Amino acid sequence: MGQVEERLKAHGHELPHPPAAVAAYVPVVRTGSLVITSGQLPMLGKEVMFTGKVGRELPEEDGAHASRMAALNAIAQIKAEIGDLDRVTRVVRVEGYVQSAPGFTRQPAVINGASELLLLAFGEAGRHSRIAVGVSELPLNAAVEIAVWVEVS
Amino acid sequence: MGQVEERLKAHGHELPHPPAAVAAYVPVVRTGSLVITSGQLPMLGKEVMFTGKVGRELPEEDGAHASRMAALNAIAQIKAEIGDLDRVTRVVRVEGYVQSAPGFTRQPAVINGASELLLLAFGEAGRHSRIAVGVSELPLNAAVEIAVWVEVS
Amino acid sequence: MGQVEERLKAHGHELPHPPAAVAAYVPVVRTGSLVITSGQLPMLGKEVMFTGKVGRELPEEDGAHASRMAALNAIAQIKAEIGDLDRVTRVVRVEGYVQSAPGFTRQPAVINGASELLLLAFGEAGRHSRIAVGVSELPLNAAVEIAVWVEVS
Repeated sequence: MGQVEERLKAHGHELPHPPAAVAAYVPVVRTGSLVITSGQLPMLGKEVMFTGKVGRELPEEDGAHASRMAALNAIAQIKAEIGDLDRVTRVVRVEGYVQSAPGFTRQPAVINGASELLLLAFGEAGRHSRIAVGVSELPLNAAVEIAVWVEVS
Repeated sequence: MGQVEERLKAHGHELPHPPAAVAAYVPVVRTGSLVITSGQLPMLGKEVMFTGKVGRELPEEDGAHASRMAALNAIAQIKAEIGDLDRVTRVVRVEGYVQSAPGFTRQPAVINGASELLLLAFGEAGRHSRIAVGVSELPLNAAVEIAVWVEVS
Repeated sequence: MGQVEERLKAHGHELPHPPAAVAAYVPVVRTGSLVITSGQLPMLGKEVMFTGKVGRELPEEDGAHASRMAALNAIAQIKAEIGDLDRVTRVVRVEGYVQSAPGFTRQPAVINGASELLLLAFGEAGRHSRIAVGVSELPLNAAVEIAVWVEVS
């Protein structure tokens, strides 16, 4: 177990078995030094754990929890592709889509769940760029969808 | 004002602000080994063939048809840039935005229209990562918008 | 001051102090020859200058102004990262999210505010690919969110 996984474990985060793609695509692709995940949902096994609109069915705190869970799945996907997470030289980007109730504009607080996990896992290399937007509907009624790009050596 | 404009004006037609959308961006850009399309709509010629919200005005199957048509346009854009589609070594990513009716959460089934076409076209190299999200509004009331990234040799 | 900044200044655009990220991430990341900004809002200093839904609280023209302001912030972020904007060899991509009123489908006209500024600043190298989508909610109720990717030498 490398340093990245040790740090995650020390904070109580165990890498899940990486979820299968839910349709006709693959969960992660490498091109050159970039490894890019597909959109990850807050799944545990085959179940979406956080559904509904953040700001209505779900409080913001649960949205942040959902984005952390989706990011953990993204890290698991990256590990499945590259083997050793310590090869990540930089987290390049997080794309965060929040299934938002009308009038909910605190998407940044929700996506911080993912961002803070990546900082925890990768330290200085975890400092990433980000988009965070609110959308009306997400696959399987998931509360969030997160994609992560990393650079590997 | 020239004679053409004078004639138009005499018939009640005022020249609009020049259609900046055509000039203000390009349909495809290459950077290094990546070729990235702009968002493609389900257009045939100058007409958007599938409009409205998927799950309300449009059934899911039409949404999938629309995403296939948009992906075909993306492939055409890539061919215009690189000349020979056999130079594509990998389809890296599909970004799929589905103009979704409230409560419609089957965006993956819609974007499968695009994904399956890319698999058909590129075989093993067509296995791509993907995001699929539902949005409330798209340009020209299009049912879907699709962007495609490929890696070329 | 390089040529890019001279052109902007000649057209009355002064680069702002680049806005701080609003949460646990950084405003810009370089990977290889790509420099990618986080989503930029139409901020002046610490204030979002254009809020509300385009097509309802805000007319399209104000949406275009908002996207120009967000793009100016993106350019400022890129300058903070690479020092000299004349090192930009290509604007690769603009991602434009428009907080849209129900039924508003002129996102391209809104994002043209950003696209035209980039063409003005970077000339031929400013010709970029683009996605433009309408979303229901954006952070801080901003009218638009814009991310920009550039290639540097």
